[in-house]
Amino acid sequence: MSDGALHAPESKPAPVVKPGDFVFAAVGLYHGHIFGMCNGLLEAGGMLKSYYDPDPRYRAQFARHFPGAHEAASEEEILADRTIQLVAGATKTDERCALGLRVMEAGKDYFTDKAPLTTLEQLAKARDAVKKTGKKYAVYYSERIHVESAVFAGQLIEQGAIGRVLQVIGFGPHRLGSIEKPDKPGRPAWFFVKKHYGGILCDIGSHNMEQILYYTGAKDGTVVRSQIANYNHPEYPELDDFGDCQVVLDNKATGYFRVDWFTPNGLQSWGDGRLFILGTEGFIEQRKYMNLGVAGSGGSYVFLANGQEERCYTVTGTVGYPFFGQLILDCLNRTEYAMTQEHAFKAAELSLIAQRDAVVLAP
Amino acid sequence: MSDGALHAPESKPAPVVKPGDFVFAAVGLYHGHIFGMCNGLLEAGGMLKSYYDPDPRYRAQFARHFPGAHEAASEEEILADRTIQLVAGATKTDERCALGLRVMEAGKDYFTDKAPLTTLEQLAKARDAVKKTGKKYAVYYSERIHVESAVFAGQLIEQGAIGRVLQVIGFGPHRLGSIEKPDKPGRPAWFFVKKHYGGILCDIGSHNMEQILYYTGAKDGTVVRSQIANYNHPEYPELDDFGDCQVVLDNKATGYFRVDWFTPNGLQSWGDGRLFILGTEGFIEQRKYMNLGVAGSGGSYVFLANGQEERCYTVTGTVGYPFFGQLILDCLNRTEYAMTQEHAFKAAELSLIAQRDAVVLAP
Repeated sequence: MSDGALHAPESKPAPVVKPGDFVFAAVGLYHGHIFGMCNGLLEAGGMLKSYYDPDPRYRAQFARHFPGAHEAASEEEILADRTIQLVAGATKTDERCALGLRVMEAGKDYFTDKAPLTTLEQLAKARDAVKKTGKKYAVYYSERIHVESAVFAGQLIEQGAIGRVLQVIGFGPHRLGSIEKPDKPGRPAWFFVKKHYGGILCDIGSHNMEQILYYTGAKDGTVVRSQIANYNHPEYPELDDFGDCQVVLDNKATGYFRVDWFTPNGLQSWGDGRLFILGTEGFIEQRKYMNLGVAGSGGSYVFLANGQEERCYTVTGTVGYPFFGQLILDCLNRTEYAMTQEHAFKAAELSLIAQRDAVVLAP
Repeated sequence: MSDGALHAPESKPAPVVKPGDFVFAAVGLYHGHIFGMCNGLLEAGGMLKSYYDPDPRYRAQFARHFPGAHEAASEEEILADRTIQLVAGATKTDERCALGLRVMEAGKDYFTDKAPLTTLEQLAKARDAVKKTGKKYAVYYSERIHVESAVFAGQLIEQGAIGRVLQVIGFGPHRLGSIEKPDKPGRPAWFFVKKHYGGILCDIGSHNMEQILYYTGAKDGTVVRSQIANYNHPEYPELDDFGDCQVVLDNKATGYFRVDWFTPNGLQSWGDGRLFILGTEGFIEQRKYMNLGVAGSGGSYVFLANGQEERCYTVTGTVGYPFFGQLILDCLNRTEYAMTQEHAFKAAELSLIAQRDAVVLAP
């Protein structure tokens, strides 16, 4: 996989419902994450009924992936379909909130690609709409919920393998890919316009902010330092090719992450995503998509060291992605096992604050 | 090696001078680093003439390591010996500057363990003394100069392997070891008194600050955020068991590091020291003392990814430690190839500022 935008994990089907019990649709197919989002829901037993995007190229691409789904004539057709319980969307980042408001207003739960929105004003509207409609604004923070090392690391922490979590450090490097090839790996033009993508800390930073909140078990935090730069891409003046952020959590743990668009072409993967979790009794390292320096390593690795042992777990094909089944059941039962609404919003909020307050370093 | 304090690398002898051309002594033998410092100078052709410490236990320990050296009756005997060109010292951290001032005043170069001093007032005195005496106040930043992966990474960067360096992230975890066993791995009582050791960012933080300056090629920097904590060692109320720091360099590169005393007993080494260097054309990861999850890995590893390749170099026994020979020649020729005086002081200065301005996170 040369391009993170098309990272769409597949797993063993593990339906949590009977066929037809949970029906969903896809609206807004810009970002390749939509495939991973639909895969996850399908494997958990959801039924993908229909899809729509104003751009026929994205509709065609989606149809090739999911030939059984119905191509709707419009978004309105989907919103009016009372059999559809949830709408998954990966439209342009700055349009994700507006779509979500329409979806929730239509009485459906919403499941959006990350970042879920691009401004604090949108966030306030989304929070209001959740309160008013009682519907969900769920977020596909794929670097945790759709990566087995991330799932397994959470299980180890829950079992007490490293004691109290003190700090999380995340690296989210990405390969930039090519521009304007919607049918191939690459990034569309809107991706380089800050108004649309929100900035690097808002966008790929939100993955890491979510993981920091999740692994530390914090409910809130304070961004104490954030930085962005365009070091080496003058051809895209609105691209942040680098960003980092330091956050202090409400439980006195801390987090730091760096995100960047500097994955070199010699690397076997689109990004050597890492996550380091320091606890009082040990530490965990995740190598999410590859094991650096080991050709063709692929997979998902968790390294654990504590008072008893030091070891490497190859977790590919083991723990799967429980998020999707939990989300379906949460939608049906109005519970919050997959992820609380406040957690999903808080990760976005802190990412937006980090982006808003970022010191510009370069060029 | 269970304890970083006794990390004393040995390499193939590579003398840069004839026997007797460069004579040195050791004064202040508290910290096990003195063995690495003397090893390095001996392998580069230096002659270890004599040693002294007020504590007979440290003298005895040193005598076992270097039976050929003469046990002086006092520090004064060594300072008065006109054949001795340099004094190496690893006394208590807060006494390192005073020793250095005496050494330089006596007309000799000084080579101290890191951290080289504990206050900005000491630093001002050291700078003055260097100016006044024309002597050197060299520093053993062992995590770079006495680690082959660190040496090799510098060579790769010099060759342009990753383009312009944008950011350095360092992890400096350490095992705390036991207390009050000067003849065995462990930490003496003064180590837990902040006045003596200076705080975690001053102490082990200085290693990382030096590396950030070195790999980015910066001459100066600004500490933009630093934090310390005692999360889990109430028995040592003055110990910082955690610290981290973010710095912006004068060339617009940045650095972040975390240091801690949480290495668990299950780990094969006293610390999984890592360093990540991000460049415009690629990146480098150093695994300094071990390869996590690979039993008995030992050694020193450099991982490189750039536009052409992704690979792992096992560098143990390859590049050696050129610092020591360069330092000897610098002393003889009054040059600065090993490390400039200003670089050595600047790393200390920024570490001291980071410590002074650190936000206290816990408990």
